[in-house]
Amino acid sequence: MCEDCGCASPSHNHKVVDVNQSLLAANDALAEKNREHIEELGAVAINLISSPGSGKTTLLEKTIERLGKELRIGVIEGDIETERDAERIRAKGVPVVQLTTGGACHLDAALVHKGIHALEHQLDDKKLDLLFIENVGNLVCPATFYLGEHQRVVMISVPEGPDKPAKYPRAFIGSDVFMISKTDLLPYFDFPSEMAIKDALLLNPKLKVMSVSATTGDGFDSWLAYLRSLCR
Amino acid sequence: MCEDCGCASPSHNHKVVDVNQSLLAANDALAEKNREHIEELGAVAINLISSPGSGKTTLLEKTIERLGKELRIGVIEGDIETERDAERIRAKGVPVVQLTTGGACHLDAALVHKGIHALEHQLDDKKLDLLFIENVGNLVCPATFYLGEHQRVVMISVPEGPDKPAKYPRAFIGSDVFMISKTDLLPYFDFPSEMAIKDALLLNPKLKVMSVSATTGDGFDSWLAYLRSLCR
Repeated sequence: MCEDCGCASPSHNHKVVDVNQSLLAANDALAEKNREHIEELGAVAINLISSPGSGKTTLLEKTIERLGKELRIGVIEGDIETERDAERIRAKGVPVVQLTTGGACHLDAALVHKGIHALEHQLDDKKLDLLFIENVGNLVCPATFYLGEHQRVVMISVPEGPDKPAKYPRAFIGSDVFMISKTDLLPYFDFPSEMAIKDALLLNPKLKVMSVSATTGDGFDSWLAYLRSLCR
Repeated sequence: MCEDCGCASPSHNHKVVDVNQSLLAANDALAEKNREHIEELGAVAINLISSPGSGKTTLLEKTIERLGKELRIGVIEGDIETERDAERIRAKGVPVVQLTTGGACHLDAALVHKGIHALEHQLDDKKLDLLFIENVGNLVCPATFYLGEHQRVVMISVPEGPDKPAKYPRAFIGSDVFMISKTDLLPYFDFPSEMAIKDALLLNPKLKVMSVSATTGDGFDSWLAYLRSLCR
Protein backbone atom coordinates (compact mmCIF):
# COMPACT_ATOMS: atom_id res chain seq x y z
CA MET A 1 0.00 0.00 0.00
CA CYS A 2 1.20 3.49 -0.79
CA GLU A 3 2.23 5.42 2.30
CA ASP A 4 0.71 8.63 0.98
CA CYS A 5 -2.84 7.79 0.00
CA GLY A 6 -3.37 4.07 0.56
CA CYS A 7 -3.69 3.11 -3.10
CA ALA A 8 -2.28 -0.24 -4.21
CA SER A 9 1.39 -0.10 -5.07
CA PRO A 10 2.49 -2.63 -7.68
CA SER A 11 6.04 -2.29 -6.34
CA HIS A 12 5.15 -4.48 -3.38
CA ASN A 13 3.78 -7.51 -5.16
CA HIS A 14 5.07 -10.53 -3.26
CA LYS A 15 3.92 -12.92 -5.98
CA VAL A 16 6.18 -11.13 -8.46
CA VAL A 17 9.13 -11.34 -6.08
CA ASP A 18 8.63 -15.10 -5.59
CA VAL A 19 8.34 -15.75 -9.32
CA ASN A 20 11.40 -13.64 -10.06
CA GLN A 21 13.46 -15.51 -7.46
CA SER A 22 12.56 -18.86 -8.98
CA LEU A 23 13.35 -17.42 -12.42
CA LEU A 24 16.83 -16.41 -11.26
CA ALA A 25 17.46 -19.81 -9.67
CA ALA A 26 16.50 -21.52 -12.94
CA ASN A 27 18.74 -19.13 -14.84
CA ASP A 28 21.72 -19.86 -12.59
CA ALA A 29 21.30 -23.60 -12.93
CA LEU A 30 21.24 -23.30 -16.70
CA ALA A 31 24.24 -20.95 -16.62
CA GLU A 32 26.25 -23.67 -14.86
CA LYS A 33 25.46 -25.98 -17.79
CA ASN A 34 26.61 -23.25 -20.18
CA ARG A 35 29.88 -23.05 -18.29
CA GLU A 36 30.43 -26.80 -18.62
CA HIS A 37 29.67 -26.57 -22.32
CA ILE A 38 32.09 -23.65 -22.77
CA GLU A 39 34.81 -25.60 -20.96
CA GLU A 40 34.21 -28.63 -23.17
CA LEU A 41 35.09 -26.34 -26.09
CA GLY A 42 38.29 -25.47 -24.23
CA ALA A 43 37.28 -21.82 -23.87
CA VAL A 44 37.22 -19.09 -21.26
CA ALA A 45 34.12 -16.89 -21.51
CA ILE A 46 33.86 -13.16 -20.86
CA ASN A 47 30.53 -11.39 -20.30
CA LEU A 48 30.86 -7.77 -21.45
CA ILE A 49 28.42 -5.29 -19.88
CA SER A 50 27.96 -1.55 -20.52
CA SER A 51 25.50 1.18 -21.45
CA PRO A 52 24.51 1.50 -25.11
CA GLY A 53 27.28 3.09 -27.14
CA SER A 54 30.17 2.66 -24.69
CA GLY A 55 32.19 0.84 -27.32
CA LYS A 56 31.72 -2.87 -26.61
CA THR A 57 31.68 -3.94 -30.27
CA THR A 58 34.59 -1.64 -31.13
CA LEU A 59 36.62 -3.15 -28.26
CA LEU A 60 35.94 -6.62 -29.68
CA GLU A 61 36.83 -5.57 -33.23
CA LYS A 62 40.19 -4.19 -32.12
CA THR A 63 40.83 -7.19 -29.85
CA ILE A 64 40.23 -9.61 -32.72
CA GLU A 65 42.54 -7.58 -34.98
CA ARG A 66 45.35 -7.86 -32.43
CA LEU A 67 44.72 -11.35 -31.04
CA GLY A 68 42.74 -13.20 -33.70
CA LYS A 69 45.71 -15.09 -35.18
CA GLU A 70 47.12 -16.06 -31.80
CA LEU A 71 43.93 -17.30 -30.09
CA ARG A 72 40.76 -18.94 -31.40
CA ILE A 73 38.09 -16.34 -30.64
CA GLY A 74 34.31 -16.68 -30.87
CA VAL A 75 31.66 -14.06 -30.18
CA ILE A 76 28.03 -14.18 -29.07
CA GLU A 77 26.34 -10.82 -29.70
CA GLY A 78 23.30 -9.78 -27.66
CA ASP A 79 20.92 -7.10 -28.87
CA ILE A 80 17.25 -6.33 -28.61
CA GLU A 81 16.97 -5.98 -32.38
CA THR A 82 19.19 -6.04 -35.52
CA GLU A 83 22.14 -8.12 -36.73
CA ARG A 84 24.40 -5.07 -36.99
CA ASP A 85 26.93 -6.01 -34.34
CA ALA A 86 27.32 -9.57 -35.62
CA GLU A 87 27.95 -8.20 -39.11
CA ARG A 88 30.77 -6.02 -37.75
CA ILE A 89 32.37 -8.99 -35.96
CA ARG A 90 31.87 -11.36 -38.91
CA ALA A 91 33.84 -8.91 -41.07
CA LYS A 92 36.82 -9.58 -38.77
CA GLY A 93 36.75 -13.25 -39.75
CA VAL A 94 35.79 -15.01 -36.51
CA PRO A 95 32.76 -17.18 -35.71
CA VAL A 96 29.88 -15.10 -34.38
CA VAL A 97 26.24 -15.63 -33.42
CA GLN A 98 23.71 -12.80 -33.06
CA LEU A 99 21.12 -13.28 -30.33
CA THR A 100 18.17 -10.89 -30.42
CA THR A 101 16.06 -10.73 -27.29
CA GLY A 102 12.98 -9.33 -29.04
CA GLY A 103 12.43 -6.71 -26.36
CA ALA A 104 14.11 -8.14 -23.27
CA CYS A 105 16.67 -5.90 -21.59
CA HIS A 106 19.40 -8.50 -20.98
CA LEU A 107 20.74 -11.85 -22.09
CA ASP A 108 19.77 -14.84 -19.98
CA ALA A 109 21.37 -18.25 -19.68
CA ALA A 110 18.72 -19.94 -21.86
CA LEU A 111 19.37 -17.62 -24.78
CA VAL A 112 23.15 -17.91 -24.40
CA HIS A 113 22.75 -21.69 -24.29
CA LYS A 114 21.24 -21.52 -27.77
CA GLY A 115 24.02 -19.16 -28.82
CA ILE A 116 26.72 -21.64 -27.75
CA HIS A 117 25.08 -24.42 -29.75
CA ALA A 118 24.81 -22.19 -32.83
CA LEU A 119 28.42 -21.08 -32.46
CA GLU A 120 29.61 -24.67 -32.07
CA HIS A 121 28.17 -25.49 -35.50
CA GLN A 122 30.57 -22.91 -36.97
CA LEU A 123 33.69 -24.51 -35.42
CA ASP A 124 35.48 -27.12 -37.53
CA ASP A 125 37.22 -28.80 -34.58
CA LYS A 126 34.77 -27.78 -31.80
CA LYS A 127 37.54 -25.80 -30.09
CA LEU A 128 37.82 -22.19 -28.90
CA ASP A 129 40.20 -20.31 -26.62
CA LEU A 130 38.16 -17.19 -25.88
CA LEU A 131 34.41 -16.68 -26.02
CA PHE A 132 33.16 -13.10 -25.76
CA ILE A 133 29.51 -12.62 -24.85
CA GLU A 134 28.53 -9.02 -25.62
CA ASN A 135 25.44 -8.29 -23.54
CA VAL A 136 22.55 -5.96 -24.45
CA GLY A 137 23.53 -2.31 -23.97
CA ASN A 138 22.24 -1.73 -20.44
CA LEU A 139 24.19 -0.96 -17.28
CA VAL A 140 21.43 -2.26 -14.99
CA CYS A 141 19.60 -5.50 -15.79
CA PRO A 142 22.41 -7.65 -17.27
CA ALA A 143 24.19 -7.46 -13.89
CA THR A 144 21.57 -9.77 -12.37
CA PHE A 145 21.91 -12.61 -14.88
CA TYR A 146 24.83 -15.05 -14.68
CA LEU A 147 25.36 -16.57 -18.12
CA GLY A 148 28.06 -19.14 -17.29
CA GLU A 149 30.96 -16.76 -17.91
CA HIS A 150 34.35 -17.06 -16.21
CA GLN A 151 34.99 -13.33 -16.10
CA ARG A 152 32.70 -10.32 -16.23
CA VAL A 153 33.87 -6.96 -17.60
CA VAL A 154 31.91 -3.77 -16.90
CA MET A 155 32.79 -0.83 -19.12
CA ILE A 156 32.00 2.88 -19.02
CA SER A 157 33.13 5.39 -21.61
CA VAL A 158 34.57 8.81 -20.81
CA PRO A 159 31.60 10.76 -22.29
CA GLU A 160 29.21 9.02 -19.84
CA GLY A 161 30.77 10.72 -16.83
CA PRO A 162 32.56 9.45 -13.71
CA ASP A 163 29.48 9.01 -11.49
CA LYS A 164 28.36 5.74 -13.07
CA PRO A 165 29.88 3.29 -10.52
CA ALA A 166 28.08 5.05 -7.63
CA LYS A 167 24.80 5.28 -9.55
CA TYR A 168 24.81 1.75 -11.02
CA PRO A 169 26.52 -0.28 -8.28
CA ARG A 170 25.37 -3.81 -9.02
CA ALA A 171 27.26 -4.10 -12.31
CA PHE A 172 30.47 -3.15 -10.51
CA ILE A 173 29.89 -5.39 -7.49
CA GLY A 174 29.45 -8.42 -9.75
CA SER A 175 32.35 -7.82 -12.17
CA ASP A 176 36.00 -8.85 -12.33
CA VAL A 177 37.26 -6.01 -14.53
CA PHE A 178 36.31 -2.31 -14.65
CA MET A 179 37.24 -0.97 -18.08
CA ILE A 180 37.21 2.76 -18.93
CA SER A 181 36.86 3.25 -22.70
CA LYS A 182 37.32 6.16 -25.14
CA THR A 183 40.22 7.55 -23.04
CA ASP A 184 41.40 9.62 -26.03
CA LEU A 185 38.44 11.89 -25.11
CA LEU A 186 39.75 12.65 -21.60
CA PRO A 187 41.08 16.11 -22.62
CA TYR A 188 37.57 17.15 -23.76
CA PHE A 189 35.42 15.90 -20.87
CA ASP A 190 35.20 16.53 -17.15
CA PHE A 191 36.06 12.94 -16.26
CA PRO A 192 38.25 12.61 -13.17
CA SER A 193 39.20 8.93 -13.60
CA GLU A 194 40.36 8.70 -9.99
CA MET A 195 36.80 9.48 -8.79
CA ALA A 196 35.26 6.74 -10.94
CA ILE A 197 37.95 4.23 -9.90
CA LYS A 198 37.67 5.11 -6.21
CA ASP A 199 33.88 4.67 -6.26
CA ALA A 200 34.20 1.36 -8.13
CA LEU A 201 36.83 -0.03 -5.73
CA LEU A 202 34.72 0.97 -2.73
CA LEU A 203 31.99 -1.25 -4.14
CA ASN A 204 34.35 -4.07 -5.11
CA PRO A 205 38.01 -3.92 -3.99
CA LYS A 206 38.91 -6.95 -6.14
CA LEU A 207 38.14 -5.19 -9.46
CA LYS A 208 41.00 -5.09 -11.96
CA VAL A 209 40.97 -1.55 -13.41
CA MET A 210 41.94 -1.04 -17.06
CA SER A 211 41.45 1.65 -19.67
CA VAL A 212 41.53 1.66 -23.46
CA SER A 213 41.24 3.92 -26.44
CA ALA A 214 40.29 2.14 -29.64
CA THR A 215 41.34 5.27 -31.53
CA THR A 216 44.93 5.55 -30.26
CA GLY A 217 45.45 1.95 -29.10
CA ASP A 218 46.38 3.12 -25.59
CA GLY A 219 45.79 0.50 -22.92
CA PHE A 220 45.43 -2.44 -25.30
CA ASP A 221 48.71 -4.08 -24.23
CA SER A 222 47.38 -4.54 -20.67
CA TRP A 223 43.99 -5.73 -21.90
CA LEU A 224 45.55 -8.28 -24.27
CA ALA A 225 47.96 -9.46 -21.54
CA TYR A 226 44.97 -10.04 -19.26
CA LEU A 227 43.16 -12.03 -21.98
CA ARG A 228 46.29 -14.13 -22.67
CA SER A 229 46.64 -14.87 -18.96
CA LEU A 230 43.09 -16.26 -18.89
CA CYS A 231 43.86 -18.69 -21.73
CA ARG A 232 47.07 -20.16 -20.31
CA MET B 1 11.81 -26.27 -23.53
CA CYS B 2 15.09 -25.50 -25.24
CA GLU B 3 15.08 -26.45 -28.93
CA ASP B 4 18.65 -27.70 -28.77
CA CYS B 5 18.78 -30.11 -25.85
CA GLY B 6 15.35 -30.16 -24.23
CA CYS B 7 16.42 -28.51 -20.97
CA ALA B 8 13.97 -26.15 -19.23
CA SER B 9 14.14 -22.60 -20.52
CA PRO B 10 13.15 -19.94 -17.99
CA SER B 11 12.42 -17.61 -20.91
CA HIS B 12 9.13 -19.35 -21.52
CA ASN B 13 7.56 -19.13 -18.10
CA HIS B 14 3.89 -18.36 -18.66
CA LYS B 15 3.34 -17.60 -14.97
CA VAL B 16 5.91 -14.81 -15.23
CA VAL B 17 4.22 -13.39 -18.33
CA ASP B 18 0.81 -13.37 -16.62
CA VAL B 19 2.15 -11.70 -13.49
CA ASN B 20 4.05 -9.12 -15.53
CA GLN B 21 0.94 -8.27 -17.53
CA SER B 22 -1.09 -7.69 -14.39
CA LEU B 23 1.80 -5.63 -13.01
CA LEU B 24 1.73 -3.40 -16.09
CA ALA B 25 -2.05 -2.99 -15.91
CA ALA B 26 -1.78 -1.94 -12.25
CA ASN B 27 1.01 0.46 -13.18
CA ASP B 28 -1.03 2.07 -15.94
CA ALA B 29 -4.05 2.56 -13.67
CA LEU B 30 -1.90 4.27 -11.08
CA ALA B 31 -0.21 6.36 -13.78
CA GLU B 32 -3.62 7.73 -14.75
CA LYS B 33 -4.04 8.90 -11.14
CA ASN B 34 -0.61 10.52 -11.32
CA ARG B 35 -1.72 12.39 -14.43
CA GLU B 36 -4.83 13.70 -12.68
CA HIS B 37 -2.69 14.79 -9.74
CA ILE B 38 -0.19 16.54 -12.03
CA GLU B 39 -3.04 18.35 -13.79
CA GLU B 40 -4.48 19.47 -10.44
CA LEU B 41 -1.14 21.19 -9.87
CA GLY B 42 -1.64 22.89 -13.25
CA ALA B 43 1.41 21.19 -14.73
CA VAL B 44 2.44 19.38 -17.90
CA ALA B 45 4.77 16.44 -17.20
CA ILE B 46 7.66 15.22 -19.33
CA ASN B 47 9.24 11.77 -18.90
CA LEU B 48 12.90 11.94 -19.99
CA ILE B 49 14.49 8.64 -21.06
CA SER B 50 18.05 7.88 -22.17
CA SER B 51 21.10 5.72 -21.55
CA PRO B 52 23.33 6.57 -18.57
CA GLY B 53 25.44 9.63 -19.27
CA SER B 54 23.56 11.01 -22.29
CA GLY B 55 23.11 14.35 -20.55
CA LYS B 56 19.61 14.27 -19.05
CA THR B 57 20.53 16.19 -15.89
CA THR B 58 22.64 18.67 -17.84
CA LEU B 59 19.71 19.32 -20.20
CA LEU B 60 17.51 20.04 -17.17
CA GLU B 61 20.12 22.32 -15.56
CA LYS B 62 20.41 24.42 -18.73
CA THR B 63 16.64 24.43 -19.26
CA ILE B 64 16.06 25.73 -15.72
CA GLU B 65 18.71 28.44 -16.24
CA ARG B 66 16.91 29.65 -19.36
CA LEU B 67 13.28 29.08 -18.36
CA GLY B 68 13.21 29.01 -14.56
CA LYS B 69 12.05 32.61 -14.10
CA GLU B 70 9.38 32.36 -16.77
CA LEU B 71 7.77 29.04 -15.79
CA ARG B 72 7.32 27.25 -12.46
CA ILE B 73 9.44 24.11 -12.92
CA GLY B 74 9.62 21.07 -10.67
CA VAL B 75 11.81 17.98 -11.08
CA ILE B 76 11.52 14.35 -10.00
CA GLU B 77 14.86 12.58 -10.30
CA GLY B 78 15.03 8.81 -10.72
CA ASP B 79 18.19 6.85 -9.96
CA ILE B 80 19.08 3.43 -8.67
CA GLU B 81 21.30 4.93 -5.99
CA THR B 82 22.62 8.36 -4.82
CA GLU B 83 21.14 11.85 -4.43
CA ARG B 84 23.68 13.35 -6.83
CA ASP B 85 21.29 14.42 -9.57
CA ALA B 86 18.84 16.04 -7.14
CA GLU B 87 21.70 18.01 -5.59
CA ARG B 88 22.61 19.37 -9.03
CA ILE B 89 19.01 20.42 -9.72
CA ARG B 90 18.51 21.84 -6.20
CA ALA B 91 21.49 24.11 -6.83
CA LYS B 92 19.46 25.69 -9.65
CA GLY B 93 16.80 26.78 -7.17
CA VAL B 94 13.77 24.72 -8.17
CA PRO B 95 11.80 22.13 -6.16
CA VAL B 96 13.20 18.65 -6.66
CA VAL B 97 12.63 15.16 -5.27
CA GLN B 98 15.11 12.32 -5.61
CA LEU B 99 13.60 8.86 -6.03
CA THR B 100 15.98 5.93 -5.65
CA THR B 101 14.76 2.59 -6.92
CA GLY B 102 17.14 0.52 -4.78
CA GLY B 103 18.10 -1.71 -7.68
CA ALA B 104 15.15 -1.48 -10.05
CA CYS B 105 15.97 -0.49 -13.61
CA HIS B 106 13.16 2.03 -14.19
CA LEU B 107 10.70 4.32 -12.46
CA ASP B 108 7.17 3.02 -12.04
CA ALA B 109 3.93 4.87 -11.43
CA ALA B 110 3.85 3.96 -7.71
CA LEU B 111 7.26 5.49 -7.07
CA VAL B 112 6.43 8.61 -9.10
CA HIS B 113 3.17 8.90 -7.14
CA LYS B 114 5.24 9.24 -3.97
CA GLY B 115 7.50 11.71 -5.75
CA ILE B 116 4.57 13.95 -6.71
CA HIS B 117 3.35 14.02 -3.10
CA ALA B 118 6.84 14.84 -1.83
CA LEU B 119 7.24 17.57 -4.45
CA GLU B 120 3.85 19.06 -3.61
CA HIS B 121 5.02 19.61 -0.02
CA GLN B 122 7.73 21.93 -1.41
CA LEU B 123 5.27 24.12 -3.33
CA ASP B 124 3.91 27.16 -1.49
CA ASP B 125 0.81 27.55 -3.67
CA LYS B 126 0.53 23.91 -4.94
CA LYS B 127 1.08 25.11 -8.50
CA LEU B 128 3.57 24.12 -11.20
CA ASP B 129 3.80 24.73 -14.95
CA LEU B 130 6.31 22.05 -15.95
CA LEU B 131 7.20 18.82 -14.21
CA PHE B 132 10.26 16.97 -15.48
CA ILE B 133 10.57 13.30 -14.52
CA GLU B 134 14.14 12.18 -15.20
CA ASN B 135 14.05 8.41 -15.48
CA VAL B 136 16.76 5.92 -14.49
CA GLY B 137 19.56 5.87 -17.07
CA ASN B 138 18.43 2.97 -19.24
CA LEU B 139 17.30 3.00 -22.86
CA VAL B 140 15.31 -0.23 -22.50
CA CYS B 141 13.11 -0.83 -19.45
CA PRO B 142 11.72 2.68 -18.77
CA ALA B 143 10.02 2.55 -22.18
CA THR B 144 7.52 -0.02 -20.86
CA PHE B 145 6.31 2.00 -17.86
CA TYR B 146 3.83 4.85 -18.31
CA LEU B 147 4.21 7.25 -15.39
CA GLY B 148 1.33 9.64 -16.09
CA GLU B 149 3.41 11.96 -18.27
CA HIS B 150 1.94 14.12 -21.04
CA GLN B 151 5.02 13.93 -23.24
CA ARG B 152 7.90 11.50 -23.45
CA VAL B 153 11.34 12.55 -24.66
CA VAL B 154 13.94 9.95 -25.69
CA MET B 155 17.49 11.23 -25.96
CA ILE B 156 20.70 9.82 -27.40
CA SER B 157 24.05 11.58 -27.32
CA VAL B 158 26.44 11.80 -30.24
CA PRO B 159 29.15 9.60 -28.63
CA GLU B 160 26.67 6.71 -28.34
CA GLY B 161 26.44 6.29 -32.11
CA PRO B 162 23.62 6.57 -34.65
CA ASP B 163 22.45 2.92 -34.49
CA LYS B 164 20.53 3.34 -31.23
CA PRO B 165 17.00 3.85 -32.65
CA ALA B 166 17.23 0.60 -34.65
CA LYS B 167 18.71 -1.33 -31.74
CA TYR B 168 16.42 0.01 -28.99
CA PRO B 169 13.14 0.55 -30.85
CA ARG B 170 10.59 0.57 -28.03
CA ALA B 171 11.81 3.81 -26.49
CA PHE B 172 11.40 5.53 -29.86
CA ILE B 173 8.02 3.99 -30.67
CA GLY B 174 6.60 5.26 -27.37
CA SER B 175 8.03 8.80 -27.37
CA ASP B 176 6.87 12.18 -28.61
CA VAL B 177 10.29 13.82 -29.03
CA PHE B 178 13.62 12.37 -30.23
CA MET B 179 16.42 14.56 -28.89
CA ILE B 180 20.04 14.27 -30.04
CA SER B 181 22.39 15.69 -27.38
CA LYS B 182 26.07 16.72 -27.27
CA THR B 183 25.92 17.95 -30.88
CA ASP B 184 29.09 20.00 -30.32
CA LEU B 185 30.87 16.62 -30.58
CA LEU B 186 29.61 15.93 -34.12
CA PRO B 187 32.96 16.91 -35.73
CA TYR B 188 34.78 14.29 -33.63
CA PHE B 189 32.47 11.28 -34.04
CA ASP B 190 31.17 9.18 -36.89
CA PHE B 191 27.55 10.14 -36.24
CA PRO B 192 25.49 10.60 -39.41
CA SER B 193 22.46 12.29 -37.84
CA GLU B 194 20.34 11.60 -40.90
CA MET B 195 20.76 7.83 -40.34
CA ALA B 196 19.63 8.04 -36.70
CA ILE B 197 16.70 10.30 -37.60
CA LYS B 198 15.61 8.12 -40.55
CA ASP B 199 15.64 4.99 -38.37
CA ALA B 200 13.71 6.77 -35.61
CA LEU B 201 11.06 8.12 -37.98
CA LEU B 202 10.62 4.68 -39.56
CA LEU B 203 9.68 3.43 -36.09
CA ASN B 204 7.52 6.44 -35.25
CA PRO B 205 6.70 9.00 -37.97
CA LYS B 206 5.11 11.36 -35.41
CA LEU B 207 8.37 11.98 -33.51
CA LYS B 208 9.43 15.60 -33.21
CA VAL B 209 13.19 15.63 -33.84
CA MET B 210 15.36 18.12 -31.94
CA SER B 211 19.04 18.47 -31.11
CA VAL B 212 20.95 20.35 -28.44
CA SER B 213 24.42 21.12 -27.23
CA ALA B 214 24.58 22.16 -23.59
CA THR B 215 28.12 23.40 -24.26
CA THR B 216 27.37 25.80 -27.11
CA GLY B 217 23.64 26.35 -26.49
CA ASP B 218 22.79 25.26 -30.04
CA GLY B 219 19.25 23.96 -30.41
CA PHE B 220 17.96 25.32 -27.10
CA ASP B 221 15.70 27.90 -28.75
CA SER B 222 13.64 25.15 -30.41
CA TRP B 223 13.57 23.05 -27.23
CA LEU B 224 12.41 26.00 -25.12
CA ALA B 225 9.80 26.97 -27.71
CA TYR B 226 8.44 23.42 -27.56
CA LEU B 227 8.29 23.55 -23.76
CA ARG B 228 6.52 26.93 -23.83
CA SER B 229 3.99 25.57 -26.33
CA LEU B 230 3.11 22.75 -23.91
CA CYS B 231 2.37 25.22 -21.11
CA ARG B 232 0.09 27.55 -23.07
